[in-house]
Amino acid sequence: MRTEYHEQLSALDRQLGDMCGVAGMAMRQATQALLDADVAVADQVIGHHEQIVAKRARAEKDAFALLALQQPVAGELRDIVSSIQIMADAERMGALAVHVAKIARMRHPEHALPEEVHGCFAEMGTVAVAMGDSASQALMASDPQRGARLCGEDDAMNNLHRQLFSMLLDRTWTHGVPAAVDTALLGRFYERFADHAVQVGRRVVFKVTGALPPEEEDSAF
Amino acid sequence: MRTEYHEQLSALDRQLGDMCGVAGMAMRQATQALLDADVAVADQVIGHHEQIVAKRARAEKDAFALLALQQPVAGELRDIVSSIQIMADAERMGALAVHVAKIARMRHPEHALPEEVHGCFAEMGTVAVAMGDSASQALMASDPQRGARLCGEDDAMNNLHRQLFSMLLDRTWTHGVPAAVDTALLGRFYERFADHAVQVGRRVVFKVTGALPPEEEDSAF
Repeated sequence: MRTEYHEQLSALDRQLGDMCGVAGMAMRQATQALLDADVAVADQVIGHHEQIVAKRARAEKDAFALLALQQPVAGELRDIVSSIQIMADAERMGALAVHVAKIARMRHPEHALPEEVHGCFAEMGTVAVAMGDSASQALMASDPQRGARLCGEDDAMNNLHRQLFSMLLDRTWTHGVPAAVDTALLGRFYERFADHAVQVGRRVVFKVTGALPPEEEDSAF
Repeated sequence: MRTEYHEQLSALDRQLGDMCGVAGMAMRQATQALLDADVAVADQVIGHHEQIVAKRARAEKDAFALLALQQPVAGELRDIVSSIQIMADAERMGALAVHVAKIARMRHPEHALPEEVHGCFAEMGTVAVAMGDSASQALMASDPQRGARLCGEDDAMNNLHRQLFSMLLDRTWTHGVPAAVDTALLGRFYERFADHAVQVGRRVVFKVTGALPPEEEDSAF
């Protein structure tokens, strides 16, 4: 009975790890759709989002069942409640990938982004996908070190984001207001994706150790 | 004993209602700071945010204690878990008000926003504050009707947000790229504040009725 219970707890972690992995994959495809102005890939990201929503609903139901049936205390209670918090972040990561895909779709057959910032977005995409994978692996392996390292990975995203805003606000920006607005919002979506991955990492640390790492402020820009 | 337990559950609702009220107040002040380029008010918003973070930490601790000590099932379990989800949204509402205040601060002594969009932001501020209050009252009174109505209030925000983007992307926009970027991001902060208030409302419905209203998609713009 106890063994089955612990198997259920591990299954919940795997569900969450799967959600983060799927969100990372969605961001990989959304970035491709954005940089290649590929509307078919954008549609795939948008169409697949239902899956992540369904996965979250299923995980939430399972977590409630565990709380109700097992009446957990101490570490196991912390584990399950953290899972409920993590699933909200993982779902949001998927929603942010959809936002990227939708802007790519809206601008098609044009490219949403001027060539000048393609390199920066390619790198932000790479960092975001890597952070989705890290969050996934931290969950799958219940690895607090891996969870804590997400904070460092986020530094790379923040640097890219700052770099993007320097280009955007430089007087040499020649691409006009609509492209600037798209660029600013898209930059924010990548940055928020990374912030949610950091939150997942913090909660993995809390799950395993009982200590919640301090929160880093996200910037208004 | 049972009575004390139910008193603790109500106290948790009051803590959450208080958080939403404080977030609404922060948004009221942040809007004032933005529209009047008032750096002292902006600093107040930024400085007071710690309070909301502390309130959330306290509420989370109390919710954990209730779960651990009372071993709730069914409706009470749903109630406490919903509270844990709601506090994340309420804290985020406060953080978004801080984002608004920070942009006001950054642009001081200039106004961050061109005169042309002041009216729109004044209205978005009014709607946001009203939604913070509605969320607060829905929680305090455990009122699912009030919680559900937040969705309709969000329609007003979405309309204002669309109106803002029409102005921003119109060829007659003469305020340049940096003001456009500020305007786009600030618009997004108000819209996200409202989305989080809607989430609080949905969870109040779930707390009381056990049925979670369907989620409305937030737009990429």
